[in-house]
Amino acid sequence: MNAPFQPAAAVSLAPKIAAVLAELGDIPVLTEEKVVKKRSRDFFWYSPILNVELADKFADIVALPRNEADVIAIAAACARHRVPLTPRAGGTGNYGQAVPINRGVLIDMSGLDTIEWIKPGTIRVGAGAKLNEIDNETRKTGWELRMHPSTKRSATIGGFVAGGSGGVGSVMYGGLRELGNILAARIITLEETPRIIELRGDAAQKVNRAYGTTGLITALEMPLAPAWDWHDVIIAFDDYKACLEFGQDAARADGVIKKLLSPIAWPLPDYFGSLKPHCPDGKAILACMVAQPSLESFLALLNGRGEVTLNAPTREEPGATPLYEYTWNHTTLQMLKADRTITYLQCLFPHDRLISSILEMAALFPEEVIPHCEFIRFGGNLTASALPVVRYTTKERLYEIIAAHEAHGVMIANPHVITLEDGSRHKRADADQMGFKAEVDPHGLLNPGKMRSYVATQA
Amino acid sequence: MNAPFQPAAAVSLAPKIAAVLAELGDIPVLTEEKVVKKRSRDFFWYSPILNVELADKFADIVALPRNEADVIAIAAACARHRVPLTPRAGGTGNYGQAVPINRGVLIDMSGLDTIEWIKPGTIRVGAGAKLNEIDNETRKTGWELRMHPSTKRSATIGGFVAGGSGGVGSVMYGGLRELGNILAARIITLEETPRIIELRGDAAQKVNRAYGTTGLITALEMPLAPAWDWHDVIIAFDDYKACLEFGQDAARADGVIKKLLSPIAWPLPDYFGSLKPHCPDGKAILACMVAQPSLESFLALLNGRGEVTLNAPTREEPGATPLYEYTWNHTTLQMLKADRTITYLQCLFPHDRLISSILEMAALFPEEVIPHCEFIRFGGNLTASALPVVRYTTKERLYEIIAAHEAHGVMIANPHVITLEDGSRHKRADADQMGFKAEVDPHGLLNPGKMRSYVATQA
Repeated sequence: MNAPFQPAAAVSLAPKIAAVLAELGDIPVLTEEKVVKKRSRDFFWYSPILNVELADKFADIVALPRNEADVIAIAAACARHRVPLTPRAGGTGNYGQAVPINRGVLIDMSGLDTIEWIKPGTIRVGAGAKLNEIDNETRKTGWELRMHPSTKRSATIGGFVAGGSGGVGSVMYGGLRELGNILAARIITLEETPRIIELRGDAAQKVNRAYGTTGLITALEMPLAPAWDWHDVIIAFDDYKACLEFGQDAARADGVIKKLLSPIAWPLPDYFGSLKPHCPDGKAILACMVAQPSLESFLALLNGRGEVTLNAPTREEPGATPLYEYTWNHTTLQMLKADRTITYLQCLFPHDRLISSILEMAALFPEEVIPHCEFIRFGGNLTASALPVVRYTTKERLYEIIAAHEAHGVMIANPHVITLEDGSRHKRADADQMGFKAEVDPHGLLNPGKMRSYVATQA
Repeated sequence: MNAPFQPAAAVSLAPKIAAVLAELGDIPVLTEEKVVKKRSRDFFWYSPILNVELADKFADIVALPRNEADVIAIAAACARHRVPLTPRAGGTGNYGQAVPINRGVLIDMSGLDTIEWIKPGTIRVGAGAKLNEIDNETRKTGWELRMHPSTKRSATIGGFVAGGSGGVGSVMYGGLRELGNILAARIITLEETPRIIELRGDAAQKVNRAYGTTGLITALEMPLAPAWDWHDVIIAFDDYKACLEFGQDAARADGVIKKLLSPIAWPLPDYFGSLKPHCPDGKAILACMVAQPSLESFLALLNGRGEVTLNAPTREEPGATPLYEYTWNHTTLQMLKADRTITYLQCLFPHDRLISSILEMAALFPEEVIPHCEFIRFGGNLTASALPVVRYTTKERLYEIIAAHEAHGVMIANPHVITLEDGSRHKRADADQMGFKAEVDPHGLLNPGKMRSYVATQA
């Protein structure tokens, strides 16, 4: 892999920053180093490799736009003075998406949180709106977002689209990349006279998981799903295979409405804090969210194969901890709280030999790699992504484990790298995204270093 | 195949009927022969074979229960006097489900049309409620039935569950047989002291497509789906293969909400009456229902592969003809209106070589079998059922065509037979249903002749 992007200009940024600051008028900014440093971080420390690599990466200032006009003013100033601009919001990512590799301005989009409208089945909302606040509003009319990351209670919709791929809900709808899961994105270009571009339908994929390198997302139009009365269910199984088999059966039951099916191997549930009483010693668990009207069918399908240790309405209010905060990358976090020596991987298993592939990989690294999967739909098939916990020793060993997965036909989206290319399952930047970047970021100033293969057209 | 069931008792039914009539009190009955004969029919005439076989099958009287107490009284009287009892409602079936093979009492369940309650995502309703009236009510709170036959505007929910298998909506949820698509059924047994049995969850499958042989359904609890703003869309393709390919892509797009994807080969659309202006000469069409918020994504997926000839909100009010009345077995009906020499088959194609299998069968019978498929989910996979139109010559030739399909791995649910066994893809009665029948119909009086392999336990 290449070293992070380091243009020669990096050392002489101070006068440019001053010039930008002078042009921002009444737009709020943060300049105090301690505060700026704190805001320049995300959850990249899940990776021991990124934790070292990104330790000294900070912005010079943080700009806090209140609306789209402010975003345009900030973009124009950065373009004029050739200052790198890195967007962030909730900062809940794990790949250093929001970490400014090359200093410059960090633009915190959280202020753009207005809901423009809610229609039956769709919402148009500012990119900075928090996911839980969106759901709180849409639920009033019977709707909710189709999917959300396990960080729903602190992440924003713009951050999810720019830095995420799917999550709770993807077992029904697939990830954000599936057609129809992002209806439109409104972006601002990084030019001296910034343009506003509305990307509709498939075109909106140009900003999906591009870390903000392909334009500053100011608004999103997203599809909604019915807001079911969800129940958190935990089922304990004697072994992981039985857990996977029932999970797959439930995932494939098209008449059973669910939002989450997470098979998690022991000893991960041993780290589940307040949930521990529902996680019997030595058992694998399936963490589930099931729509209330489907609960009876869901349990009939189980037919005694496992023990139901929790079955209660999902609670997300302050003070409660929803089950989904023990799934996806929160599973890793639960163990990290107790054991900082572990890290994780991101796998996508082949759909046509799903369970055998998962078990094959688990058998290759007993004790060292602890299985944790997430059933999802992907490209029209049911499959599983996975965020197994890895007992970390060295970078070399981690890459051996990655290579072994790939050699066995398991795709890896490496979460220990900062570039889109290295983190992609295909080890390259999306061609559409790269072509589009040339249009919207001719000077290569948007979150520089993240799209490694991009060469600025007007450097 | 066996001949229809004809017990020796059939000739001496008149005194028994008189005895039953005397016990029915103020329960409305129809006794005029002309009226009873008319009510004893369904749409079995789609099959030239059944049209002959069932021509002289009628009930003696029709009972019109107003509520469950009436149903119990009718069941008790029939049990006491050993009189066959055959349930019907809309009479929209095509297999003679509602035709009394062995005379007796026809019980028209249409009067049991009360909606007990509607909750978010579920409804409990009398078996005689019409499907369109259910949707009209549930739509007031944003819900609708997950699926319905193309006869929605005249069929009842009880008839659909007792005599149907799936329909418009099965491309999302699978058929009625999939877990969760029938939540509960309340039935009355055919005994001298009838019992009321509540079948919940998987147990409700005991009455699904059993033609009323396993109990008289009085109420059903059904899951609901969000009531989308549906659009009727027709897309014309130069050839059927392209039509199938796009249909499959759309069916597999988990982020695109649809209710109907029906690939229909030319010349079927030539018979589509008021829809003909949207069906260009010589083209295959894909008849679709797509949720309004998914329309843009759906058309983006099409990407110019076919020509959109209709795109308008679904209209179901009197005077309008919804697109779905040109799909499922309404497709056959449209052609039958002009050409009484045709009939049809019911196929289920293998999901793992779907398009090649459909094209293979079409190539075997050019001109003679005209392809018409319906994309559905089945057992967790996307596949297609089909109701191809067959240019009918002889029964022998029809069975040759059926045998050729089966020899090529295409399952046939034969619609030219009246028994559950012969009409099943597996050529046998469901073991659960057969075992259950012994419990609820010890005298073998419920719709006799339809479950051929059942031998009455107390004959």
